[in-house]
Amino acid sequence: MGMIGGGAGSFIGDVHRKAASIDGMIDLVCGAFSSSAEKSIASGKALGLPESRCYGSYEEMILKEKELPEDVRMDFVAIVTPNHMHFPPAKFALKNGFHVVCDKPMTLTLDEAIALEEIVNKSGKLFALTHNYTGHPLVKQARAMVANGDLGNIRKVQVQYLQGWLSTPEEKGDNKQAAWRVDPKRSGIGGALGDIGTHAENLVEYITGLKIDELAADLGRFGEGRVLDDDGNLLLRLENGAKGTMSISQIALGEENNLAIRVYGEKGSLEWHQENPNELITHWLEDPIKVFTPNGNGLYPEALNTSRIPAGHPEGYLEAFATIYKNFATHLMAILNGETMNTPDYPTAKDGVRGMKFIYAAVASDTNNAAWTKI
Amino acid sequence: MGMIGGGAGSFIGDVHRKAASIDGMIDLVCGAFSSSAEKSIASGKALGLPESRCYGSYEEMILKEKELPEDVRMDFVAIVTPNHMHFPPAKFALKNGFHVVCDKPMTLTLDEAIALEEIVNKSGKLFALTHNYTGHPLVKQARAMVANGDLGNIRKVQVQYLQGWLSTPEEKGDNKQAAWRVDPKRSGIGGALGDIGTHAENLVEYITGLKIDELAADLGRFGEGRVLDDDGNLLLRLENGAKGTMSISQIALGEENNLAIRVYGEKGSLEWHQENPNELITHWLEDPIKVFTPNGNGLYPEALNTSRIPAGHPEGYLEAFATIYKNFATHLMAILNGETMNTPDYPTAKDGVRGMKFIYAAVASDTNNAAWTKI
Amino acid sequence: MGMIGGGAGSFIGDVHRKAASIDGMIDLVCGAFSSSAEKSIASGKALGLPESRCYGSYEEMILKEKELPEDVRMDFVAIVTPNHMHFPPAKFALKNGFHVVCDKPMTLTLDEAIALEEIVNKSGKLFALTHNYTGHPLVKQARAMVANGDLGNIRKVQVQYLQGWLSTPEEKGDNKQAAWRVDPKRSGIGGALGDIGTHAENLVEYITGLKIDELAADLGRFGEGRVLDDDGNLLLRLENGAKGTMSISQIALGEENNLAIRVYGEKGSLEWHQENPNELITHWLEDPIKVFTPNGNGLYPEALNTSRIPAGHPEGYLEAFATIYKNFATHLMAILNGETMNTPDYPTAKDGVRGMKFIYAAVASDTNNAAWTKI
Amino acid sequence: MGMIGGGAGSFIGDVHRKAASIDGMIDLVCGAFSSSAEKSIASGKALGLPESRCYGSYEEMILKEKELPEDVRMDFVAIVTPNHMHFPPAKFALKNGFHVVCDKPMTLTLDEAIALEEIVNKSGKLFALTHNYTGHPLVKQARAMVANGDLGNIRKVQVQYLQGWLSTPEEKGDNKQAAWRVDPKRSGIGGALGDIGTHAENLVEYITGLKIDELAADLGRFGEGRVLDDDGNLLLRLENGAKGTMSISQIALGEENNLAIRVYGEKGSLEWHQENPNELITHWLEDPIKVFTPNGNGLYPEALNTSRIPAGHPEGYLEAFATIYKNFATHLMAILNGETMNTPDYPTAKDGVRGMKFIYAAVASDTNNAAWTKI
Repeated sequence: MGMIGGGAGSFIGDVHRKAASIDGMIDLVCGAFSSSAEKSIASGKALGLPESRCYGSYEEMILKEKELPEDVRMDFVAIVTPNHMHFPPAKFALKNGFHVVCDKPMTLTLDEAIALEEIVNKSGKLFALTHNYTGHPLVKQARAMVANGDLGNIRKVQVQYLQGWLSTPEEKGDNKQAAWRVDPKRSGIGGALGDIGTHAENLVEYITGLKIDELAADLGRFGEGRVLDDDGNLLLRLENGAKGTMSISQIALGEENNLAIRVYGEKGSLEWHQENPNELITHWLEDPIKVFTPNGNGLYPEALNTSRIPAGHPEGYLEAFATIYKNFATHLMAILNGETMNTPDYPTAKDGVRGMKFIYAAVASDTNNAAWTKI
Repeated sequence: MGMIGGGAGSFIGDVHRKAASIDGMIDLVCGAFSSSAEKSIASGKALGLPESRCYGSYEEMILKEKELPEDVRMDFVAIVTPNHMHFPPAKFALKNGFHVVCDKPMTLTLDEAIALEEIVNKSGKLFALTHNYTGHPLVKQARAMVANGDLGNIRKVQVQYLQGWLSTPEEKGDNKQAAWRVDPKRSGIGGALGDIGTHAENLVEYITGLKIDELAADLGRFGEGRVLDDDGNLLLRLENGAKGTMSISQIALGEENNLAIRVYGEKGSLEWHQENPNELITHWLEDPIKVFTPNGNGLYPEALNTSRIPAGHPEGYLEAFATIYKNFATHLMAILNGETMNTPDYPTAKDGVRGMKFIYAAVASDTNNAAWTKI
Repeated sequence: MGMIGGGAGSFIGDVHRKAASIDGMIDLVCGAFSSSAEKSIASGKALGLPESRCYGSYEEMILKEKELPEDVRMDFVAIVTPNHMHFPPAKFALKNGFHVVCDKPMTLTLDEAIALEEIVNKSGKLFALTHNYTGHPLVKQARAMVANGDLGNIRKVQVQYLQGWLSTPEEKGDNKQAAWRVDPKRSGIGGALGDIGTHAENLVEYITGLKIDELAADLGRFGEGRVLDDDGNLLLRLENGAKGTMSISQIALGEENNLAIRVYGEKGSLEWHQENPNELITHWLEDPIKVFTPNGNGLYPEALNTSRIPAGHPEGYLEAFATIYKNFATHLMAILNGETMNTPDYPTAKDGVRGMKFIYAAVASDTNNAAWTKI
Repeated sequence: MGMIGGGAGSFIGDVHRKAASIDGMIDLVCGAFSSSAEKSIASGKALGLPESRCYGSYEEMILKEKELPEDVRMDFVAIVTPNHMHFPPAKFALKNGFHVVCDKPMTLTLDEAIALEEIVNKSGKLFALTHNYTGHPLVKQARAMVANGDLGNIRKVQVQYLQGWLSTPEEKGDNKQAAWRVDPKRSGIGGALGDIGTHAENLVEYITGLKIDELAADLGRFGEGRVLDDDGNLLLRLENGAKGTMSISQIALGEENNLAIRVYGEKGSLEWHQENPNELITHWLEDPIKVFTPNGNGLYPEALNTSRIPAGHPEGYLEAFATIYKNFATHLMAILNGETMNTPDYPTAKDGVRGMKFIYAAVASDTNNAAWTKI
């Protein structure tokens, strides 16, 4: 793995590195950690890399690694930069024959997303988008339960992703994470929408197997001077006639990372909370409430196969993130071994396009006073 | 207290009776429990009333009780009939000099509600609407915290009232509770909206002290053949600029009585769940999460004064309901003693009109594809 | 019902009155609320009683009520005094033909308890002991599950009853509740043991249907100057070979009324918490965790018949307490109607003797450095 | 890092490898994964090691690695074998100049433990014992709160470690984990005591900073034919006069890994649950309940410095385990750089001796019918 971005002070770069390392399948071998060669080298050396594999730009990294012997050079790049720096390196890597893991939202603009999906498809290379929350064992269980018809036809969905860290004007201080997220040039047209809304959208579609057909969005810009949304309240209509709400926020004071979903069908319902991810609460027409736990009783293989450790040993954010990397790496190794895999289980460029369409639909709806807008 | 409705098989009549009796301030002295004199007598006798105080109609009860000596006759009526039978007896009772406690929603139509508020005001009699959830100690605490500015300016509200009991076609069997609730002639233009939506609306306005200014409603009618909503997803805008969502449902399979609210301000936030009502979770800019419990540390007098028993002894639905009766009875006794009371703490006809306006706005919005509609 | 004790400032007297009134089966008709006639009258009048039925002593009440016509006089007495005043009025009431409801622990001494059980048996009158926690629907469910063999042979029990209100020297201020509870003359030889330990002991035996055979107790007297235990840690051995722990405390700072029990069998296990009484968590060999709720799916009749209101409407401490009164009153009415009832479901003098034996065994064990002691 | 044990099918070996890798400070460079050279090579190659670094015995590994250049050879061994194979390789590694990380309980016998502590002390090498639960941020917070006097003098402790996986005779099937744990030759004189009881003992002493002075233990051997305890109920007395209970079990059916602790002081109390490790609940004399979360408000540096990711992103079992490795590695790197460190924060041989003394005291007490026994 070669990393693009993720130098000193980066939050998500460190997460990617830890997640990639847990299962012992992936080694960080090089990086363009910063746009300054000096900083990139400093970051890379702190990570134990030789200076020769610390590059001053992604172009340099990709071109130089390409020249290295096959068993030495990186197999794929991991892009962990702000949104505006997703498309250029992803495109460049793919065109130069490298597979790609990319943080979400996939690109700065919808046009880029559509273009990137096409580039991926033409390249024959793998592309994983780190919608990490789909990596939890019980999210897999939820998806399998819906897919197997346990809940019956889905009627109602509630999803929320609530944070409070932008309740105060963090971007006016020295919080780099805040600074780029509220800046349209680096974030795109969505603020909270892109940063967390796409996770919520992806989780709904992943678990229910249903597309969000249209939405009505009322966005908030509560932080003084903010031009991008820091809050959103949405109505959802799914392709099968189900209805729902989505509530996202970065000004929900006190909320840490409160992603939660409820799905109601004609025969059963389920509830999952990211902050306590090792519990899947389900309700049934005739049976009492059933609570599933990772590696506990009554799980589908999709869930069982995702756990790393026995029941009762909580896995968390990094492990779910690692599952994306593990499934990607498993696919990659199959490819490298000349094998094929059916439906590898990690988010792809297709999900990335859905996410960007979601952002654009929500912004359009909001501009039109929350009018219904197709995704 | 004389009861109108609430005969054998009634759910809410029994609740009113238990709630009224807990604090030892109110005796049931007569009733028109059914439109059949025979059934009314049977119900009344089962409740320990003499046959002479069991009436075959509310008119009969009101007129006959009026003739009794002051120290014998009922002081007020409790109306616990389906919605279409709220306005006529309330009006008749008030015009004949009796105070009124009435279940919600206040009336069948908005016109009736407006008329009733006027009748109440002219009558000089007391009128209580049983928005029982406002009777919980920690709902009082929540309201006091907002009123005292602890949370700062309110930015976001999430409220939900989710039930699953109409997931199946209950009304097609012999479930009387279901039958009238899905029947516009007895329920009015709102289904879930009237039955539970008004509680959600009332709770938002009670806790935040803010009016909902406008809403966008996408209603569902999932049960086959239903003409009234059995599900609703709403966007809210409050008078101060706060935004939010409301999700209500009677087809959220497995949910029992999941009323919950989250309120986010600039300085703090709070969260309360009806199914576990003895916990108020709060978040703060600088402090750790603080959880308040009834009669626990750190409460305002409004909360402390509402608890009946020491901390750790859970009070529930009936106790909160009883608080409405207690506060009404306290006010009534003051009046009877020729005293005056400032701002008695129980819902009134004014709240009833708000509730009916809420229903009408939501239905109008839904008819107009979830267009923003003023309450 | 005639009440003995429970005058102004009493905690438990008010609880008994509220609990007795909820189901509309019992009226308070007289009382000896205080050993001062004046205070008794003041308390009684505040409760709406005529002065003529407010007595200055329990003897006076019992003798005078006995003279009243059958349809006027009280049917039973409710004894809500400190422990030392349980036996004398109970004995006097029974001997004069009145049924008795009595707070726990049943008596001041074990000898009294044994004597009282004999008096009850000879009298042919009813005697209920208010181990109120057995009145919760889900405690009934727990008992029924064990009785029906759902959990298989019981192997392990954990019970705790933790409070923190005596963490500080409350008895040295004007806290009457504290004052008599730390005083051996009024409390007996057990402090926390009698006040809350007997509840824990009773709950274990009620749910498991097993007797505690022997125990090893290490009692604490943490409050300065206290001669009675304010804390206890116990090992338990049940008659079938099951083992367990009991932890009780009134100096567990911050705990409000944390009574909780876990029962582990060979086929299943269960867990119940008094502070959130509307949830029974169960585990199974093959099935996922199942959570039962009052009036929810999958309950036994014993639980279903105990709920007063639909699922999701929390019942609490008073309702469970009321169930003791309701079951007692149902039995009493059957008796009064000349009917017989099999195994009425409320605690009796037999439970009272068990409780006293538990206290005595625990104190003896503690005196003997936690040596195993038979109950 | 060179691993001893942890070949294919090992649970804890995989945990150690994942935990060691998360922070990017430690590489697995060699292993004696099995006592069969063939199996060891197979396991090592599956882990990406060259065959030359996969050894057939720990002696071979230690002696051969010692011959390698300093910058190539392993720096320390990680011992992840059953208990009877802790002491021999630990001793051999230390004597040959390697630092050691060892799973708990430290040794098979108390004599070995005492000998090992001495060997460690004489060797000048580092020795870490993986009491992994002390690696949670909120366990650090709990310890810091007690150390800083926030809770005042400690009066009462409750600790439990409940599992249910040995409810059925797992050892009679092909469950290797079960087989060695119930076998005294491989496990030592303690069953559940050694496997989980030592964690409970260590957690009490780590958080409170107090030694358990004496205990009374009633052990269960519920599984047919088991000679080692699979259940234990204990009374505790701490060196400062605090009292408490410990409940451990591997036959608590349905429990997964329910380690929990409550500590009550004169000024405050705290509660922590391993299965939901990202919440520390605290109670106070005057303040409402305060709940701390990792990287949330109000934490001490000891807790803040332990988190890897922002608040609301749950860390779990592996991360806590990784913290032991991280702190050990940090210390090791300091040593390698010729620096010194004060009080490195990871469990050592001293803790290991405490754990073995705890096991021996508990078994002795149980043999003596739960007589008080000094640790």
